[in-house]
This record gives sequence, C-alpha cells and structure tokens, in this order.
Amino acid sequence: MIQARVVKIEGRGGPDVLSLESRAIRDPGASEVRVAIVAAGLNRADSLQRKGFYPAPPGAPADVPGLEFAGEVEAVGESVRDVRLGDRVMGICAGGGMATHLVVHERELVPIPTNLDYVEAAAIPEVYFTAFDALMVQARVGIGSTVLVHAVGSGIGTAAVQLVRAAGGTSIGTSRSQAKLDRCRQYGLDHGVLVGESGFGVGVAAVAPRGVDVVLDTVGASYLEQNVDAIGLGGTIVTIGLLGGVKGTLSLGTLLAKRGSIRGSTLRSRPLEEKASLAARVRNELVPLFERGVLRPVIDEVLPMDRIREAHTRLDANETFGKLVMTW
Amino acid sequence: MIQARVVKIEGRGGPDVLSLESRAIRDPGASEVRVAIVAAGLNRADSLQRKGFYPAPPGAPADVPGLEFAGEVEAVGESVRDVRLGDRVMGICAGGGMATHLVVHERELVPIPTNLDYVEAAAIPEVYFTAFDALMVQARVGIGSTVLVHAVGSGIGTAAVQLVRAAGGTSIGTSRSQAKLDRCRQYGLDHGVLVGESGFGVGVAAVAPRGVDVVLDTVGASYLEQNVDAIGLGGTIVTIGLLGGVKGTLSLGTLLAKRGSIRGSTLRSRPLEEKASLAARVRNELVPLFERGVLRPVIDEVLPMDRIREAHTRLDANETFGKLVMTW
Repeated sequence: MIQARVVKIEGRGGPDVLSLESRAIRDPGASEVRVAIVAAGLNRADSLQRKGFYPAPPGAPADVPGLEFAGEVEAVGESVRDVRLGDRVMGICAGGGMATHLVVHERELVPIPTNLDYVEAAAIPEVYFTAFDALMVQARVGIGSTVLVHAVGSGIGTAAVQLVRAAGGTSIGTSRSQAKLDRCRQYGLDHGVLVGESGFGVGVAAVAPRGVDVVLDTVGASYLEQNVDAIGLGGTIVTIGLLGGVKGTLSLGTLLAKRGSIRGSTLRSRPLEEKASLAARVRNELVPLFERGVLRPVIDEVLPMDRIREAHTRLDANETFGKLVMTW
Repeated sequence: MIQARVVKIEGRGGPDVLSLESRAIRDPGASEVRVAIVAAGLNRADSLQRKGFYPAPPGAPADVPGLEFAGEVEAVGESVRDVRLGDRVMGICAGGGMATHLVVHERELVPIPTNLDYVEAAAIPEVYFTAFDALMVQARVGIGSTVLVHAVGSGIGTAAVQLVRAAGGTSIGTSRSQAKLDRCRQYGLDHGVLVGESGFGVGVAAVAPRGVDVVLDTVGASYLEQNVDAIGLGGTIVTIGLLGGVKGTLSLGTLLAKRGSIRGSTLRSRPLEEKASLAARVRNELVPLFERGVLRPVIDEVLPMDRIREAHTRLDANETFGKLVMTW
C-alpha cells in the first residue's frame, strides 16, 4: 500500500466540486501492475461523472475520475510476465486515472510508441481505443468506406479522421465551428460540413449523395433522425456518446429500407477479457502506426493537475481542439 | 412470349381489388429461366401491396403480387448452365409470383428438397430465406443463442423456431394466442410468452433473466422499446417487418449501456448478386436439413388460386398458423 495523490469529486456539480487529496492505493495482485502516472487525458466522461450523470461501474472508485493514463511501471505482481519495472505504458481504465498511481491488470496495458513522450501518450488511449474499436472492429471501416464523424474537432473526432485516412476511407466531419473544420484538414479530413440551424443533412448529402457507410456518433438522440437519413444502403451508425440526449425518434421504416443498423458501444463497463483483447489489437495494429507517424495524438493544452478545475471549465465550454492533458 | 394467368391488383383496397387475368410473359434472357409455377405462398407483403403500402421495387410488375413460387423449369436461356428443363425449383422474387409463369435468373433458384412436393416447397422460400438470413447470416445465431421470435405462429415465426433449434439455440416465442404457442411446441419452441395488455417484457424476463441475444422482430415501432429492454449485453434486434408502425421511440442510453444493436433488413429490394448469394447458402445449408427432416414447411391451408380473395381475408384476420399456399 502506498499513498497517492488523486483528484476527488466531492458531491456533484461544477468544476469546484473537484479537489486534490491523498489516498491509499493497494499493492498489485498477482497479475497486476502499479503504474506511476505521469500524465492523464481529460475526457467528456470525467465531466459527466462530476455532474453525476455517469457513475463509475462496479470495481472502479466512485469519486476519482480519469479513464486513461500514461506512466511508468513501478511495481509488478508475482505472475506478471509481459511487463517489466520501468516500462513506459499507457492504457484505459474504468476510473481512477486522475491519480499519481493506479493498479491495473497487465493485459490492459499498451507500450507507449517509442517516438512519443508521456504527455503525448496520455492523449491517445480513450480516443484512439474507442474510435478504433467503433470504426474498425465493429463497423469494419476499410478501403472505400465513407465515414461521417460528428464533433470532428474533438479528441475522438481528430482520432477518427486519422484512422479513417489510415484505413483507406473517406471522412466527412461535422462541427459548429468553421475554424475547427479547417484545422482538421491537416489531420486528413476530406470534407467538412458546418452544422447550422437546419443540421448537417444537406451538407452531407452534397458530398455523399448515396449516403455514408458509417456514422461515428457522439451526440445521440438529437442527431438520430438525421443520422438515419445520412446513411446509405447497408450503412451503420455507431453511437458512443449521448451529448444530445438519450431518447430519440427512430424511423424503422427508413432503417429497414436501407438495411441499416444502429449500434451502441461503450468501453468503460467491458469485462477484463474484452479490454485485454482490444489492448492486444491496439498493441499490434495502432502502435506501429504511431511509430511511423501515420497517427498523431492531437493535444490542445497541457495543464498541471492542480489546475484540474480550469481544465474542466475549458472542456465544458467546447473550446478545445483535440485533447486536454493533465500532468503530475 | 407466352400468355400466363396472373393475380392482378386493380387499384388499392380490400381483397376485392384482386382478380385473375391473362398477361403476356416475356421469354427468358440468356441467363434466365422460365418457371411453370405450380404453387405459391401467400405473404403479409402481398396484403400490404394490395393496400398500397408496399409498392413493388423497380423491375418487378407493379400490379402482380407474389414473392415466392415453386414449379418446374420449362424454358432456359442459352447461357444457363446449372438448371435444366424439368427441374423442380423454388425461389423468392421481387414480385409477380402469383402467376402461372415467371422469368427469373438461374442463380436465384433453389432445388426443391427431394422429399417435398410443390405445395410443401411453396411454403418455404420467403419465410425460410428471410429467417435464415436474419438469424444466421446477420445475427449469427448458433449454439447457446437465445432468440426472441415475435408472432411465433406466423410463417416466419414457425420457420425461425425450427432454425433456432437446428442451430443449437433456445427460442422464446410471443403470440396473442395461447393455442398458437401450444402448437409451436411441436416445432421446437422452448418457451412461449402470451402477449397481454402489458406486452411481453415480464414474460420474457422470467425465462431469460439476463436478456436475449437476438430478437427477430416483425412488428417494428410499437415493440421497439420493449425489444430494447429485452436484449442482454451485446444483443441484436433484427427488424424485418413493421406491422406495428414505422416510427418509434429508441432509448439510445439503454442501447449504449447494453452495447446492443438494431438492424433493419429486407430481401425484396436486394440486387441480384445478393439474392444469388443467399440462394447459394440456402442450397448448401438448408436444403439438406429439409431432406433430413430437421426443417419442415408449416402449412395452414392450401387453396386454389381462384380463391385468392378468401386467402387474403384469412391472412388479414391473423387466423392462420404457418403458411397459406395457393395452387394453379
């Protein structure tokens, strides 16, 4: 057992419910590893958890946010085989990532690409694991796929655009900000659609008249009808976020005529074996692409952990482009 | 060109808009076959088309219903290779099946199982091709799968129950009729749930407390919320019919938490290559199961084609168990 510093959520509300405190962290079990965290990416889920809308799943600390981390292995259990003391690692976790130390199963860890530092690595796991799983593993995006990416200037959006490009597909990104659309060009965005009063339908139809193959949706209910309209024959909507509400109107008639599908997906609550399986694919398929410079983390700003309230305020204001990364 | 007898839809409305008339049928093209139809199954889609709700896709006759047939090959085009004059064949078509003759591409045909006659064969294509495609091809039902089948006494329902049993899965069937649930037992139904005022949710949860893996849904909007509640982690709803309406309320929050999916599917409008691909799987995978007696067509009643109005009236009244088959 060691004493760690953690971000604590006291009650629920605005960024002022967050503070730093000391907390005991247990020793690693047989197949576990304790990581000394250097940097951690901030996510929309942290903000939702702070507001009380996204409670931690069983097994994760209820009052310490943080879904990803980058750091150094500083203790290993007796059965650990693939990870060594001093290894530079990154990963996703179900909570507790906003801490100086974290105990995780060794199979959930991914080595940090050799060309990246801890801060850059901390901007990778949540957005790249999530977008890779949704786009490649679930929706099988590949050569020739046309993919609609909402909130394309977000961390997940900028990761998705790069993954689509790397896989040989075409990306269409939406945003309410023309400046964000313009910045996405350097990451390989093919078509930008500015979302206005009437939504994104006309803009998407102009560049994809037969509809898109895949929608990566972080908005949910308020975009549901437009998303169903936007897909083409056999198209798939993968919903990974619900910033626009949880209950929407679904036109099953349109879905049936298009033979389309809608999937909901989340990483946080998955069992260890599925997370380990995804981590293995990331190790084999994505890490080399980072090392070759095909994929890049997109970082808006790096802040020390004692400015966590300021970071939440910035994220809530939708001002960021790419990721906010916190450091200890 | 030959003269055929066909069922004609004159306008739209009740069964009295149907009548028999003569119509010219073109000769088969190079890769096509003309089938002398002996028997044809009646489908809900015929009734919807009669009412004006389900127009024929391009290429199919607008005013002759009929989505399946069984008969004898009586003419073949010069490039036809796999089918011979006199072959006993069955198949699905995009329309025009309620006729004495039909021209189809040879790749869409499936040989009639050797142990079945034309009438029995006519009860197979729509319901078995559709249920097989939805359950096995799309939802990958197999050993251990728990499948919820709505309107289990229907043609599609009785086919689905047998397919689930043949694949090693467990079926839960719903119906508003206890008598139909009881009759489904002999086809392998594992659990029957009587649909009452409050729906089917409690009954399904009682036999599948962790939720079902797959829902085969012919109802659509009015069952959407209950279907989403009924699936378990990673469950799939395949919607192939919309008898309960086309627009429903979708709880994306529940879908996301369960990592579930909803697919719309229809066979009628598919391009030739997809229909041919499905027909090939049916030839290889289902025909042997009919010949071994594992799968059986379920026939409610056989009527001569000049009683087509009476057949529509019976289908519309939801009185039937299994299929109505019309003969020339």
